[in-house]
Amino acid sequence: MLGTGAVGGLYGAMLHRAGQEVHFLVHRDYAWVRDHGLRVTTKTEDFTLEVSAYDQVGAMPRCDVVLIALKATQNHLLLQLLPPVLKADGLAVLLQNGLGAEEWLADLVGAEWVVGGLCFLCANQVGPGHIHHLDYGEITLGTWLASETGRLVPLIKILQQAGIAVQLTPDLPLARWRKLLWNIPFNGLSVLLGATTQAIMENPHSRALAEALMIEVQDLAQAVGHPLPPGLTAQLLDHTRQMQPYQTSMKLDYDRGRPLEVEAIFGNPLRQGKLHGQLAPCITTLYQLLKALDNKNSPCEHRESS
Amino acid sequence: MLGTGAVGGLYGAMLHRAGQEVHFLVHRDYAWVRDHGLRVTTKTEDFTLEVSAYDQVGAMPRCDVVLIALKATQNHLLLQLLPPVLKADGLAVLLQNGLGAEEWLADLVGAEWVVGGLCFLCANQVGPGHIHHLDYGEITLGTWLASETGRLVPLIKILQQAGIAVQLTPDLPLARWRKLLWNIPFNGLSVLLGATTQAIMENPHSRALAEALMIEVQDLAQAVGHPLPPGLTAQLLDHTRQMQPYQTSMKLDYDRGRPLEVEAIFGNPLRQGKLHGQLAPCITTLYQLLKALDNKNSPCEHRESS
Repeated sequence: MLGTGAVGGLYGAMLHRAGQEVHFLVHRDYAWVRDHGLRVTTKTEDFTLEVSAYDQVGAMPRCDVVLIALKATQNHLLLQLLPPVLKADGLAVLLQNGLGAEEWLADLVGAEWVVGGLCFLCANQVGPGHIHHLDYGEITLGTWLASETGRLVPLIKILQQAGIAVQLTPDLPLARWRKLLWNIPFNGLSVLLGATTQAIMENPHSRALAEALMIEVQDLAQAVGHPLPPGLTAQLLDHTRQMQPYQTSMKLDYDRGRPLEVEAIFGNPLRQGKLHGQLAPCITTLYQLLKALDNKNSPCEHRESS
Repeated sequence: MLGTGAVGGLYGAMLHRAGQEVHFLVHRDYAWVRDHGLRVTTKTEDFTLEVSAYDQVGAMPRCDVVLIALKATQNHLLLQLLPPVLKADGLAVLLQNGLGAEEWLADLVGAEWVVGGLCFLCANQVGPGHIHHLDYGEITLGTWLASETGRLVPLIKILQQAGIAVQLTPDLPLARWRKLLWNIPFNGLSVLLGATTQAIMENPHSRALAEALMIEVQDLAQAVGHPLPPGLTAQLLDHTRQMQPYQTSMKLDYDRGRPLEVEAIFGNPLRQGKLHGQLAPCITTLYQLLKALDNKNSPCEHRESS
């Protein structure tokens, strides 16, 4: 598990508890996790596990499956982190939002070994090595090459045995665009307006803007060849209206002064659309605003590839 | 003088010092101004004047010229404030940014008596009855009906005698669009990014967005029949790059929790464009964001007409 934040900590702990051999690369909280383990608090449980923690990949064994749970802003580190820990026939599973990273991973480890995962998850890291799992948790998995889907069978079994719900998608890019349909409006507006999902939905102006942004995402997806089902926008808006007020991950990153995944979630979709002749002026406006805020908020840490 | 903030306080004090009879309607600082007068600090001077201050229009005399220096968000108050103080052949001079208020004033006092004024001014109110004049100060004046331009001759003379630079425009709407070309990008971005003009110009993303917004303002102005000169955007950007770092008036209003002039500066230009079939998606995005922030920032005071 490369990265032991909310996503990596939760799924890694669940796999470990189910008896899998899991090795965790831990950045910020390495010493804490080594000494105290990982703690997971859910709606019904609160458990702590001793785990194999590492602060560098040199000491880690090569693995059959490398789950990548870094922020997209840290992907440049994979050049150093991934090759030493991935077996020659191992799968690299990217548990991230946004577009563009699989292409890049395919060059690094070979397209047939690249898997994308989309986590539908409300979870936050609330202290060192301590994950609070609020709601949901399903992962949508797909291979970068649709022809390689068969490789996922054993992995899906392992995840399910660990209590993790998994959906298999035969069309990973479509699944990514589907997720962008929510992430582009709600991640963006949550930062620019300092608002929860509920506050965005309750104000008529931000709600109208969310809808306008979703229409542009649909147009981009259509232009690049991954048309989204027509009723999906209405369905997502309805669902968001009924959700508990939620701080998006981008808002939490912003509040903590961490770099934002602006290129993965906004920049790369915009560039893909542009290559197909489709512009998206409202999303471009959000992109420029978020880039300017991000530069100001985390000026030194910033190093997201575009 | 209806309204004694930075604009009304500065120009009113200059007129008073030049020997004109000026009556000030003062809202927030009435008791202070009545007892201590108005103080003006400029780059070269610092003077205090005793002035005729009022907290209600009932006590004020009818005047030859009523200068309106309220925020556009307060214009609904003019229904009560303006008729009692304007002589039958007096001029109502609207010293405000944005579009839409002259049409409305024309209904209230008669189109031939309506004058618009655009203040190119860096001035802030820094304490009760205390105006800090930082830079510039010219007023561009025009009558709402171009045929009535002649009525401005005596007023221009009086303003100039008081040391106020005046430009006469034969095309008031064009002058308003010209000013919007700066106000739309820089007022909007200053609030959304918490940035000075300098910070906006220095970041490549916010600078690119400012340019994109200016192109949309040009397209709107063209569509509604007031085309702006082609080199103006480049000239304004150049000028802004060379300015001292400046907090826009909208940013100051926002920081003080006061209502923002979103309808005057964004909403009305957008609606005029739409009537002529011209959309402006980047400006619309800013409009929705600013409306949502404004609702949150000054939820009770809000009452801008659209």
